[in-house]
Parts: sequence; C-alpha cells; structure tokens
Amino acid sequence: MTTLSITGGQVLLPDGTVTRADVLVDQDSGEILETGADLEGDATLDAADSLVTPGFVNGHCHVAMTLLRGAADDKPLDAWLQEDIWPVEAELTPEDVRAGAELGILEMIKGGVTAFSDMYFHVPEIATAVEKAGVRAVLGHTAITIGKDEADARADMEESLAVATDLDGAADGRISTTFQPHSLTTVGEEYLREYVPRAREVGLPIHFHANETTNEVDPIVEEHGVRPLEYARDVGLLEAEDFVAHGVHVDGTEIDLLSETGASVIHCPASNMKLASGMAPVQRLREAGVTVGLGTDGAASNNDLSLLDEGRDAAMIGKLAAEDASAVPADAVVEMLTQGSADAMGLPVGRLEAGAPADLAVIDLERPHLTPAHDLVSHLVYAAAASDVRHTVCDGQVLMRDREVTTLEEDAVLERASEAATQLFERAEG
Amino acid sequence: MTTLSITGGQVLLPDGTVTRADVLVDQDSGEILETGADLEGDATLDAADSLVTPGFVNGHCHVAMTLLRGAADDKPLDAWLQEDIWPVEAELTPEDVRAGAELGILEMIKGGVTAFSDMYFHVPEIATAVEKAGVRAVLGHTAITIGKDEADARADMEESLAVATDLDGAADGRISTTFQPHSLTTVGEEYLREYVPRAREVGLPIHFHANETTNEVDPIVEEHGVRPLEYARDVGLLEAEDFVAHGVHVDGTEIDLLSETGASVIHCPASNMKLASGMAPVQRLREAGVTVGLGTDGAASNNDLSLLDEGRDAAMIGKLAAEDASAVPADAVVEMLTQGSADAMGLPVGRLEAGAPADLAVIDLERPHLTPAHDLVSHLVYAAAASDVRHTVCDGQVLMRDREVTTLEEDAVLERASEAATQLFERAEG
Repeated sequence: MTTLSITGGQVLLPDGTVTRADVLVDQDSGEILETGADLEGDATLDAADSLVTPGFVNGHCHVAMTLLRGAADDKPLDAWLQEDIWPVEAELTPEDVRAGAELGILEMIKGGVTAFSDMYFHVPEIATAVEKAGVRAVLGHTAITIGKDEADARADMEESLAVATDLDGAADGRISTTFQPHSLTTVGEEYLREYVPRAREVGLPIHFHANETTNEVDPIVEEHGVRPLEYARDVGLLEAEDFVAHGVHVDGTEIDLLSETGASVIHCPASNMKLASGMAPVQRLREAGVTVGLGTDGAASNNDLSLLDEGRDAAMIGKLAAEDASAVPADAVVEMLTQGSADAMGLPVGRLEAGAPADLAVIDLERPHLTPAHDLVSHLVYAAAASDVRHTVCDGQVLMRDREVTTLEEDAVLERASEAATQLFERAEG
Repeated sequence: MTTLSITGGQVLLPDGTVTRADVLVDQDSGEILETGADLEGDATLDAADSLVTPGFVNGHCHVAMTLLRGAADDKPLDAWLQEDIWPVEAELTPEDVRAGAELGILEMIKGGVTAFSDMYFHVPEIATAVEKAGVRAVLGHTAITIGKDEADARADMEESLAVATDLDGAADGRISTTFQPHSLTTVGEEYLREYVPRAREVGLPIHFHANETTNEVDPIVEEHGVRPLEYARDVGLLEAEDFVAHGVHVDGTEIDLLSETGASVIHCPASNMKLASGMAPVQRLREAGVTVGLGTDGAASNNDLSLLDEGRDAAMIGKLAAEDASAVPADAVVEMLTQGSADAMGLPVGRLEAGAPADLAVIDLERPHLTPAHDLVSHLVYAAAASDVRHTVCDGQVLMRDREVTTLEEDAVLERASEAATQLFERAEG
C-alpha cells in the first residue's frame, strides 16, 4: 500500500463543519483511509494555511465547447444555438473534441473540479482525455431526433445507448455513463417511448435537459396538456437515478414529482443568467427534498468551467429568486457543489471521510480576499476563486500540485486548443 | 522625464476595440504619452500575451469593511446591518480602519483596480492607506442623523463637510472627495436642506445611497408623496456631479430625472443579489443616457472587491432584469467598469489614450479559461478573474509587477488585518 498524507490543513467534513486535520489516502485503492491528527504517509502534500475540501463536482457540462468560448455572447438560447453554436458544432471533428475536452479538463483540474457529467458527441475522444487527465466523469452521447429522417434519428438514439454501454467502467472505473435524449422538445415522443425502456433494461441512468426556457415548457403543455416533467414521467423518465439539467421553469407539481421520484436537478445558474433563461427555484427544490447539484453548462454560455463561480452564482440568484437573503445560504451551496452533484450523478464522492474515494481540492487561504478567516464556508462560496486552488487530487492521485497540473502538459493543451479553434471557425465560416 | 513602456500587449482602446500596441507613460507627470508600435521607454513592463486595459474603477466601496468579510452572511439588509454590522462597526478604532483599508486596497491592486470611491468614517486613516498604496480614491465621511440628538447629528454632518474639504487634493492629487449624507432615510430632511447647499458652496460632489431596497422607497413615498429621487432633487441633490449608490428600485420618472440632471448611478450587482435587494434596471438606465458605473459595495456584502466579478455579475443580472440575453452586453460592461465609474466619480481616468492618467491593468491571457482568444472583450467580462491581472499601474507608477505588490508588504498587511479583526470581534462580543 502506498499512502499520501495531506497535512496541516483545515478539513471540510461531510456535515459542513471545518476542523484541523490531516487526510491519509491509500493511493493504490484511491480511497481515504482516515482523517485525524498527525497522520504520516509515504508521501506528503502540504495543506498548511489551506482548506481541504471534497473535489468539486460539475453536474452538467459540454466540456469540448471550450473551443467556442467567447465566440458568441449576449444572445438568447434559441438564436444563439441556431445561428452561432450548431453551425460551428457541425464542423467539429473527433480531434477537435479531444482538444476541447483536454482544455476543459485542464481548466477544471486547475479549479479543483475532480468529476464532471458531460453531454456531447465524439464521446470516445472525451473518454480518452478523461483517462489521460485522471479525473472522474459520467459521459454520454446526446441524441436529437427532430429535423432528422427516421434512419438518422434512430442511429443517434442507438449511438447514445451504445456509447453508454461501451464506455461504462472505462479508465479503471473512473468513467461511468448515462443515456442522453437531448431534451423533451428535441427528441420525438415515439423515440422516448421506445428507447427509455431499452436504457432501463441495461441499467443506464438518464441525463437530459428540461424546463430550461419557457420555449421548452409551452409546446409540451400545448401538445400534451401536462407540464414537461409530468410528460417526462409518462414516457418513463424521472427514475431516482436520472437527473435533469437546468429545471428553471418548474412549477409546484413538478417539484413534488421530483421529490416523489427521487430524480435530481442540476442547477446551472451562470448559463441561466447569461442566456436570460430565468431563475430556478432552488430554495423551493431543496425544501421539497429534491437533490440539487451544480453545473457549469458549456463554456460558451458561462464562459468558464469554475464550480466555485457557479456556487457563488447559485447563492446569489437563489436569494433573488426567493426574494429572501437567507435563501440558498453558504452551507447549502457547499453541499450542492460537492454532495449534491455527486448524488445526482450516482458517484460515491463529495464527502471527505474514511472509505470514500480520495477526490479533493486544497484551497490556499493566505490571500487578501480570503482574509480575515471568520468563516471558511462563507469564504468558499462568497470569496474563493478557481485560482485559489493549490492542489487537486482524484482517485488518490495528485492531478495538480502547487498549481502545476501533472497529467496534462498545460502549454501544449492551450496551443492545440487554440489551433483547433482557429481552424474550426475557418471551416465554419468558409 | 522618466518613461515606462508597456510592451508587446494588446490594448483595449476607449472605443472598445482591441489593437496590438505598446503604451508609453511619463512617470513624472503620471500621464500616457502615446500608444503605438515599438515605443521605447527608460523602463519596460512586459505585456506579451496580455491585454492592457484601463485600471478598473470601483464606484462604491466601504473599503475598511474587509475586516467584517464573511462574519455575517445570508441575511436581509436591515437585519444584517442592525444585528451584525453596526454593533461591530461601533467598536472600530482608527487603527482598525487603517488595517482594513490596507487589506482592501491590497486586494484591489491585485485585481487591477486603480481607483475607488469610498464611504466610511475615520477617513484620514483611509487617506493615509491610499497615499501609501499609490492608488487613486474619492473619499468621504458618511453622516447619519436618525437616532441622534441634534448636537451629534450636526457634528456628523459638519464632519462630512470638513473631511471632504480637508482631504481634497491629498496624496499628490490622487485623493478627491465627496460630501456624504448616508441615505435619504437615514438623514433628516432639515439636515439635507441645510447641508446640501453648504456642500455646493464649497464645490463638493455628493455621494449617497438611494433606492437600494423597497424599505428605502416606501417611507419616502408615504411621507412626501413623491419617489425618493424626486424628493432628493427637491432637497438639492442630483446635480450632474453627484452619484447615487445602488439605484435598484427606480421607476421611469426617476430614470428620466437622472437622465435630465446628469447625476450618475453606481450599480452594485453582487451586493444587491447577496442581500436580495433586487435587480437594478441597468439596461433601461443606459438606454436613457444615464451614466452607470460599477461598485463592489463593502466586502461584507459581496464578499470580495473584484471589479471583474462585478462586471460579470452586472452582465448576468442585467440580462435577467431585462429578460433579454442581449441586454447589458460585454462592451457595455467594460465601459461601465472603466469609463462609467470614472465619469460618475469625476475622475479623468478609464480611457487608455494620450494625455490621460496612466492608470491601467495588464491581464495575462495565457490561461486555460481565457483560451481560445475569439473575443478579448468577452473574456474580460465573462471569463477573466482578479487573479489573471499581472501588473497594475496607477498615476504612472507600477503598483504591482508580476503579482508582487510594490507599495504594500502583503504578508504584513494580511497579518495586521487578521489580528485587528480578531480583536474587533472580541470587543464587540465581549
């Protein structure tokens, strides 16, 4: 057994309290052995003047969209997708997706994110990037059927099933998978009714977009006479292992349905603000017992992949939505960006305790904006930034030490991504 | 003449475009001599792979409140002030204010902020910190009359006038001042009618809080039968050189009044979200031709002093408030956090051009979250963070070079602030 001791820090425990402790990790199994005083390991990671937290968990991402970061802003969702995003995405090659995924994963490691749930295409390229980078991921191929003939639509749904089946357990178990009908308005009812049961047969959780904008609500209410999540339940979605991205425009009936089924919501506050989609009722969801995680969405609608930014945004917009400054308080945010996302994604991470996977981030507290140290949970939500992360550890391995990423060569990743982005936009515009 | 050339960067020009250029500075006068190709100076500041922007201007701050950062969160404005903030502030000594101001200014220099407008007390201590740190500031003593007997109320108003008169032009002209009645509900009408004309006699601009919450609107409507800014105008406020902090709950009449008078608004989106105060109609204000700047408010309701965070928040909340993703776009935000705040505060900064004061920030673009480089204005608003600032220059002097602040000793500032905060809360709780 090779052990690593993370020493001298203050540790954020699963109950939300902070205590001075070392963290001892078994690097062979990738698990936390113990938290406590004076723990010696074969190797050491210094956490003096630092806060040791669970690695942050990004519950909804399109990681390769980093190549489109800043290419089109300040437009509403539908126009932005149809005029700016989809035409460029149509030109994406597998190599582009690989370059964009490495860039996004590099950015996430530098911000203390150790796991992410992704929704995209050319997924084997993303899996290769995950394997190399050492992070944990829940991957899947997103299927869309509208605007396609039956053969193409069916092929896309089949690919979503096949990719999820093939990649489950890859990267020494760090990769798990979901079946991914894109949304309730972009996948036809007949395909949902056929493929959702097939996903259940092979035990796949389902990750889909829902209720992001009113354009995703009104057509369903008109056609089916019920709210979108009621329709989702009717076609077999919303099992306890499923999770919905966004959930902005959900009403009381839908909140109750989420609570009853145990399906989770991934809240993406930055994207919802930037696209003016609206404010999700996070305080009400949490009060109803719904598991809520946090996601960045893609870098084109955010425009970064910092979960700490997302946490601050969730607190801020949560208070506005509830018209109550006590809504979505700091401890709730910390829970959402660790345990909430992890539980939604079905991962046994998000808690620093013996027996749990050793996925963690070490945050430098010796910063002007983190001084004085009245309340470290407050600091984590309202003042800390991605650049305050000193070390990132996933599955017991040190992915970043003193801001130096060990598994990816930063300069080369930036260069490949820049080059890929330049050529991609030349093709799209040409 | 001693010159400094900032070389090899891309420069954000006053019209919002970005061009490759060097910036030549006269360090004796503190002014920009020229922007252009191949400019040689006596000294050099490297800006390769970087964006050179005007220094960011923080239009509304309570800088010494850094000592209260994270001490009380997740509460609405009135309860937070009365239960958590005011009891602690009552214990603040001049030495505390000095320690808190140095911490806040250190944080701002590290985030590219070169000027701030402050509202507090023990103001000579803040002026000393400004002088030492090398930044630019518009200072003032905030006066409150409610809950005080006439002698105390009058003394506070007199102090606000005296401080503004005494400190104007201090720190080699880097300090200017404002007269500061705290707000329309915390200063009695008789005092406003007496002291506002006296401030005009000595040529002082006036900086005050207004329309932050509905609790600052409803009592005035009830008592005076007009909106708060109509009442403000009636008592002699809202001249073109005045600026209002917050302006969240302003109606069409008040927007027109701001537009007609030329008075400015400092928008504080993070504080407005965190205290659930509401969403200022920034897009409507801008469309009406009102000058809008950005401010962090105090670190206790934010909880950092990053203007880049504030810019991102302004774009995000501006879109939500307008229910339009094209509202408050990136170029408008860049204008607000440079020219907007500067114009509101009456400072000739916020524009990188020959003859202007050499107040600027150099942002490192070689970061994963700023790759690829489709649009640097987008990056500045939606992806850049305070920690991306490499160098900060104010009045021609380099205040930070390669993240090392030259005018303040960082470790000592953090230590003094931590110690002061600990003792302050011991006194307040004892």
